[in-house]
Amino acid sequence: MNIQEIIAKKRDNLELNKEEIEYFVTNYTNGNIADYQAAALVMAIYINGMNKQETTNLTLSMAHSGDILDLSELGTVVDKHSTGGIGDKITLILAPIIASFNIPVAKMSGRGLGYTGGTIDKLEAIPGYKTNLTIEEFIQNVKKNGISVIGQTLNLAPADKKLYALRDVISATESIPLISSSIMSKKIAAGASKIVLDVTCGNGAFMKNLKDAENLAKMMKNIGDLAHKETVCVITNMNEPLGKAVGNSLEVIESVKFLKGEMSEDVKEVILELGSYMIKLAGKGANIEENKQKILENIKNGMAFEKFKTWVSSQGGDVSFLEDTQKFKKAKYILPVLAQKSGYVTSLNAQKVGEISMNLGAGRIQKEDTILPEVGIILEKKTGAKVQKGEILAYIHANNESLANEQAQKLQNVYEIQEHKLETKKNILEIIA
Amino acid sequence: MNIQEIIAKKRDNLELNKEEIEYFVTNYTNGNIADYQAAALVMAIYINGMNKQETTNLTLSMAHSGDILDLSELGTVVDKHSTGGIGDKITLILAPIIASFNIPVAKMSGRGLGYTGGTIDKLEAIPGYKTNLTIEEFIQNVKKNGISVIGQTLNLAPADKKLYALRDVISATESIPLISSSIMSKKIAAGASKIVLDVTCGNGAFMKNLKDAENLAKMMKNIGDLAHKETVCVITNMNEPLGKAVGNSLEVIESVKFLKGEMSEDVKEVILELGSYMIKLAGKGANIEENKQKILENIKNGMAFEKFKTWVSSQGGDVSFLEDTQKFKKAKYILPVLAQKSGYVTSLNAQKVGEISMNLGAGRIQKEDTILPEVGIILEKKTGAKVQKGEILAYIHANNESLANEQAQKLQNVYEIQEHKLETKKNILEIIA
Repeated sequence: MNIQEIIAKKRDNLELNKEEIEYFVTNYTNGNIADYQAAALVMAIYINGMNKQETTNLTLSMAHSGDILDLSELGTVVDKHSTGGIGDKITLILAPIIASFNIPVAKMSGRGLGYTGGTIDKLEAIPGYKTNLTIEEFIQNVKKNGISVIGQTLNLAPADKKLYALRDVISATESIPLISSSIMSKKIAAGASKIVLDVTCGNGAFMKNLKDAENLAKMMKNIGDLAHKETVCVITNMNEPLGKAVGNSLEVIESVKFLKGEMSEDVKEVILELGSYMIKLAGKGANIEENKQKILENIKNGMAFEKFKTWVSSQGGDVSFLEDTQKFKKAKYILPVLAQKSGYVTSLNAQKVGEISMNLGAGRIQKEDTILPEVGIILEKKTGAKVQKGEILAYIHANNESLANEQAQKLQNVYEIQEHKLETKKNILEIIA
Repeated sequence: MNIQEIIAKKRDNLELNKEEIEYFVTNYTNGNIADYQAAALVMAIYINGMNKQETTNLTLSMAHSGDILDLSELGTVVDKHSTGGIGDKITLILAPIIASFNIPVAKMSGRGLGYTGGTIDKLEAIPGYKTNLTIEEFIQNVKKNGISVIGQTLNLAPADKKLYALRDVISATESIPLISSSIMSKKIAAGASKIVLDVTCGNGAFMKNLKDAENLAKMMKNIGDLAHKETVCVITNMNEPLGKAVGNSLEVIESVKFLKGEMSEDVKEVILELGSYMIKLAGKGANIEENKQKILENIKNGMAFEKFKTWVSSQGGDVSFLEDTQKFKKAKYILPVLAQKSGYVTSLNAQKVGEISMNLGAGRIQKEDTILPEVGIILEKKTGAKVQKGEILAYIHANNESLANEQAQKLQNVYEIQEHKLETKKNILEIIA
């Protein structure tokens, strides 16, 4: 077996077998296969595709290219993952909700790059919160409190890390077999027994239309099933940002409010849907509608918020900030964005809002960039809202006045306002269970 | 413009424009585009193809990536090129024939790699022959004697050199736009005004079947026409080696014999066809059949052989070897290969014969390998020949006894002998003029 023969097979649209995929992943990871050979193979995969069996084999090979976290002593761990979006604070809210049902939450999250934020960056906006626990501390925390969320300290799926960086510079990102194997390899390496996937769909997501999102969801569900990790996919709308806040401490504050009962409709729908399936997969409730009611109950009775505080406190975070979110450092300039005309908001492009947030300093353009936790955007009006000319649409939170003005101008232009209301936006597009 | 966008276009099967192709070639040549990005683009070109205009633009960009040889002071220079074969000594024979008609021959040739031989290696089998003249000496020789053949001393089409090496390690060689632009870029850079192409077809050639060979020929003719270099393609059979000799000095000896009138039928047909079109393109005879007669005449009257001697002598070669080919150093072991049964030779796979010749030391496996000029194979029987069991099919010329035995055994197995004769082999398959 050699890499030229493997490239030639995929180039000619033939199926690669398990041994060939394993050979590629192993030898690319250890440097025996050159980047240019991997690039040729990846481009052939992008164009000619991979079937379910090939994609599953690629996933498993990548998962086993580095450390595999063993969480078996914790029982059934249901992991949750989003394919990326703007204003996505779901993990911050959902993790303590799930833990409040005595379902173990042992999660490794990532940092943000480009216009999508990362859970780890958001958690670090809480003063004192440590994201770099040792694996022993991490497991101890879950055993003691039922919950821990840390950064990726282990060498999880190094093959995926290398391929992901390569795909980025050779225009081979938006490929269903490559995206699904990348996500699932990390989930499997991170020790999940079951997986609920939030497959985002829309202008702020990798998948721009429902058909592509469905294909990605089906592929990931299939990999999960073939890898004996039961998987449910919820396809959610990412044409506008999720919730009101975009930015790190602003999203923490929104999460606290949510857990105290002040819920944006779209965040609520997504939380209830994902959470109910997580409870179901954990074997704590077979009926989805009943699970939704149970979640609302654990918010109302304060158990979810209590679990949030226990969690944050156990990782060194200052809980007083959660009890009084006024304590969070504020950006120097908070600028309102006003409606230029009366009518209905018909579009609020998630990707463009994400770019503005990144420009303000809430995200990273380069991996090395530092983040300003306090900057971002609060969206007072979202699609479907009726607005009057001069009414406040949103606030820009910035540390630099000219930047604030410039980005406020941009955000004003992102808001599309028309005379007639468009049909109501659906937040949950499809469930593949 | 950036390389990611260019890769994405070709990945999505869109046409690249002149500026995009130029951008890629320039920046890849100067190192601003990485090998892995070029590999992704090349694989996308391999799979999705390139149309005539794109291929012509790629050819011209590569031709202009380095030196361009200006031969305009010599008048109309008709270059000839073969897409590669086994036992291909056409240039050695055809160059002096063409020069004997006072048509200038100013040719840069290459070395062999893998199982196909190179004209420069064959010429160097003549003691004293210098292949590394300066460009001034080269042009002076053509002016004085009408002929000179040297190695590639100039920096011709460096983009092609880099891409060719890359294609080899990423399984992207057999692509019509990539092969045709590679060949034509070098021909254009080498200063040809008109071009006759020997497009080989069969198991010993890049193109295994007539349809692919036709497509390659049409693409190259099209590039030539769009680049204002009139081009004729002759598709020739490469299912068995050309002529009797395979190996460097053995092929020189066969060439001398040919020019003295002792001609193998297949070599003769190819020489007459290519030569007649070269004469026609040079404006020295519009009628192909008449040109063939003129060529036979210049062999018969000795003018072609005289021109061979003048040429070799002007480049330092020892002409006494041409006058008495017995002077060429012989291999230590000359082993007959005998027919194992009686019947007709129905197949003599060119590629396999080429591999045996390479194993004997007549070709290079690696670029750095040195060649043994005296080793090789003499094929006494070729396809269609009637043979008796025990009759001599061929001779192995080797410097090592065990290697000689081993390769003789292999060659015996390459000969397929059956009871009934197959239909007569066609040497000239098609002409695209």
